[in-house]
Amino acid sequence: MFLWLVYDITDNNLRNRVSEKCLDFGLSRFQKSVFFGELDPEKMNGLADEIEQLLDHEERTEEDSVLLSPVCMACLGKRLVIGKDFNPETYAEKECLFIAE
Amino acid sequence: MFLWLVYDITDNNLRNRVSEKCLDFGLSRFQKSVFFGELDPEKMNGLADEIEQLLDHEERTEEDSVLLSPVCMACLGKRLVIGKDFNPETYAEKECLFIAE
Repeated sequence: MFLWLVYDITDNNLRNRVSEKCLDFGLSRFQKSVFFGELDPEKMNGLADEIEQLLDHEERTEEDSVLLSPVCMACLGKRLVIGKDFNPETYAEKECLFIAE
Repeated sequence: MFLWLVYDITDNNLRNRVSEKCLDFGLSRFQKSVFFGELDPEKMNGLADEIEQLLDHEERTEEDSVLLSPVCMACLGKRLVIGKDFNPETYAEKECLFIAE
């Protein structure tokens, strides 16, 4: 399942740790705070849980938000692209890098 | 049809004009360069055309990109939210503001 992950996080340190976690799970950075990639539902939930733990932190603000928004192939087929091309297949599921902590 | 609009535009002036155009079409800013809202396919195409014209400009770079990514109710139903809530209904279609040029 392809998905968008969009976050709006105030604290630089928290924001960096969330983006590293997205990369660990095999998502690709589409843009500063926007990631795209393919995860199965179980991995998507796993990523959300780990981000929730990362944000369980005093630097977190009430405005901070992280949204994981799945998008099906039918929806992706209706996309419109202006400028640099966007091909979802280049973001297809990658091996996840899990580093034993 | 709900959609994400995500852009990555280098030039400040171009970026501001694109964001104003998104607001004109009734989209809401979810985050600096991420908009969300509800447009019918005709308006979505109209917005894409107008953004294309805005970007038909010497300040445009090869890295600049604007992506309109529709997302159906089934996909929205699978979203995961961490932190500030995200309710698509609050972004439901608004009257568009067209200013005669």
